Amino acid sequence: MDKSILWKLSYGLYAVCLMDGQRPSGCIVNTFFQVTSGGVVAVSMNRDNYTHSLIEKHNRFGVCILSESTPARTIGALGFFSGRDKEKFAGLDYRMHEGIPLLNEGCCGYLILDVVGRYETDTHTVFFAQVEDAFAGVDIRSMTYEYYRSVIKGKSPKNAPTYGV
Amino acid sequence: MDKSILWKLSYGLYAVCLMDGQRPSGCIVNTFFQVTSGGVVAVSMNRDNYTHSLIEKHNRFGVCILSESTPARTIGALGFFSGRDKEKFAGLDYRMHEGIPLLNEGCCGYLILDVVGRYETDTHTVFFAQVEDAFAGVDIRSMTYEYYRSVIKGKSPKNAPTYGV
Repeated sequence: MDKSILWKLSYGLYAVCLMDGQRPSGCIVNTFFQVTSGGVVAVSMNRDNYTHSLIEKHNRFGVCILSESTPARTIGALGFFSGRDKEKFAGLDYRMHEGIPLLNEGCCGYLILDVVGRYETDTHTVFFAQVEDAFAGVDIRSMTYEYYRSVIKGKSPKNAPTYGV
Repeated sequence: MDKSILWKLSYGLYAVCLMDGQRPSGCIVNTFFQVTSGGVVAVSMNRDNYTHSLIEKHNRFGVCILSESTPARTIGALGFFSGRDKEKFAGLDYRMHEGIPLLNEGCCGYLILDVVGRYETDTHTVFFAQVEDAFAGVDIRSMTYEYYRSVIKGKSPKNAPTYGV
């Protein structure tokens, strides 16, 4: 079996954002997709991720759809540290929207989501969520995972579903 | 709420393939993604799709990862008719691999999948499946859904998760 074939699947790149008490937190994901035309979406997240525990706590989170103009440092700040140890949003330009922190830098759009269900695998939870609000950002072209890897030369953190294939 | 924001999510394009008795069948999907680094994947499919009933019957299917060189007629043949009414593979170049029909035209790679679980929404089932085999095709660049829509000027059929947003 050639597991590198799984690298041929196409994804976008997204920031999952929510509050951890008084401070904003979240992480970067690529495995986020629409499930129904009625606005149910899904995201896969490792149960070891701190953001996983925050989603379980709040059952509500925001998603920023990253664009090709999203700075690499933004992805680095949100993607390669744990919110347990680090104030991830320190130094990032963001705003609050109905209790959800949203990035101002390089986003095509924003989604506000309520968790409606989940599916467990041995390592990851797939959270299903209903889109409660959706609005545009200022950037045009969505960041694809392939663009992130080939143009920005970005890597995957170890808990990503697509790490190490 | 601006539901058009959901068009900013990024996807690939895939052919789900399996047998319907003695004839090959299947459909085109964009909402297919990796869930765990251990090789669990997920696909969202409308319960009205004929392919949905075939997946339920066999619990095993193939996925062809389409490339930018996949002919538009291949996508048209598999994507815009029901396997109830039409022999979808008629005229397409395909081969059999362990009981699964696989397209020879314009594929980056192939996955053979066993269903391991499911999640139901009001309209769609998300099938979770384990990758049992994976091997390369001859084409290089994966077809993204954005490429399909912007370059090939393709559309979504009415049962797609991303139809009509």
